[in-house]
Amino acid sequence: MLILCDIGNTSYHFLDSKGDYKKDVNSFDPSNIKEKIYYICVNPKVKIVLESLNNWIDLTNKVDISNYYETMGVDRIFACESIQNGVIIDAGSAITVDVVKDGVFEGGFIYPGVRAMGESYKRISSALDYEFNFSLHLDKLPKNSQDSISYGYLKLLYNEVISYDMPIYLTGGDAKEFAKIFPNAEVDELLLFKGMKKVMQTL
Amino acid sequence: MLILCDIGNTSYHFLDSKGDYKKDVNSFDPSNIKEKIYYICVNPKVKIVLESLNNWIDLTNKVDISNYYETMGVDRIFACESIQNGVIIDAGSAITVDVVKDGVFEGGFIYPGVRAMGESYKRISSALDYEFNFSLHLDKLPKNSQDSISYGYLKLLYNEVISYDMPIYLTGGDAKEFAKIFPNAEVDELLLFKGMKKVMQTL
Repeated sequence: MLILCDIGNTSYHFLDSKGDYKKDVNSFDPSNIKEKIYYICVNPKVKIVLESLNNWIDLTNKVDISNYYETMGVDRIFACESIQNGVIIDAGSAITVDVVKDGVFEGGFIYPGVRAMGESYKRISSALDYEFNFSLHLDKLPKNSQDSISYGYLKLLYNEVISYDMPIYLTGGDAKEFAKIFPNAEVDELLLFKGMKKVMQTL
Repeated sequence: MLILCDIGNTSYHFLDSKGDYKKDVNSFDPSNIKEKIYYICVNPKVKIVLESLNNWIDLTNKVDISNYYETMGVDRIFACESIQNGVIIDAGSAITVDVVKDGVFEGGFIYPGVRAMGESYKRISSALDYEFNFSLHLDKLPKNSQDSISYGYLKLLYNEVISYDMPIYLTGGDAKEFAKIFPNAEVDELLLFKGMKKVMQTL
């Protein structure tokens, strides 16, 4: 039975024969699992803990890094490995947007996730303390406060992603929210696991 | 001698016969000034203090608000009053972007300022703790961490602003930084004061 795990800044995301599930990074103890687990991890603290556990096997160095860049998050790399052509939006605590053309990483960028961006507005002024409106009209400049911050966050991302004119893959904890502004995107919360399986096949 | 003051979330910005200067909102005591001062203020705490001072005269209600919207920051309104056609980027603790066509407000949006956005990335992960690169190449997807967050912040704003195809006016404390990515913009740190003077002429 193969167990895969993708560890981000906020949670462990597992995939096993029963399906996928998440555990909080702050409360989950990885030494409780005795089976062999293949993982990738962007969380510096968890990384140190896992290196001391023999049944946790890091897939990071199994990818040819020459197509990517040194400080690029391993989650982004494995997401890119899963597709041949398209733009991947991984909407987690950060939103990473990466472009792959003919199987080659073309570059990408990082944007704050929903919670981080919401807190950012809120900290500037209590007058900007609103939830984002994902049902916003993207073709019209707003004339109210909630839509003014929603447009600033969502429309600007939309413009850039649409400009690539490529298939859009949405993954990460907020994928379904962002599907509202990218209705043609393919939502695939297991995209990184596909990348991990693909890389493991080449070993 | 006319004294004008625009009060934001972080500072009092004065204009008098000698020029313009700023005072920190946390340390400046407005009751120390005895001359008559015409002001606008978006800072809720300062607003309450100024209402009790007879020589501080609020210009907020001197504008026909029907062109704008109820919760719109008065600084944005007065910036819009200063021009007939164009897009105004006010780069302060928040970045407000407003479009005026034939003297009429068309709508606008709000984006986090440099400090707020930087802190937002940093709080997501220490791996994203970089200064923004305002000399970034905007026509190429990045392949390094600093440019990945800089692109996320700056290119997305650039796309949207450029799409209006209108003259660009840059104001606010970070106007000069943003002039690097909007080289054709007119930088005018006194733009709001122009709006204030224009409104006072109609009284």
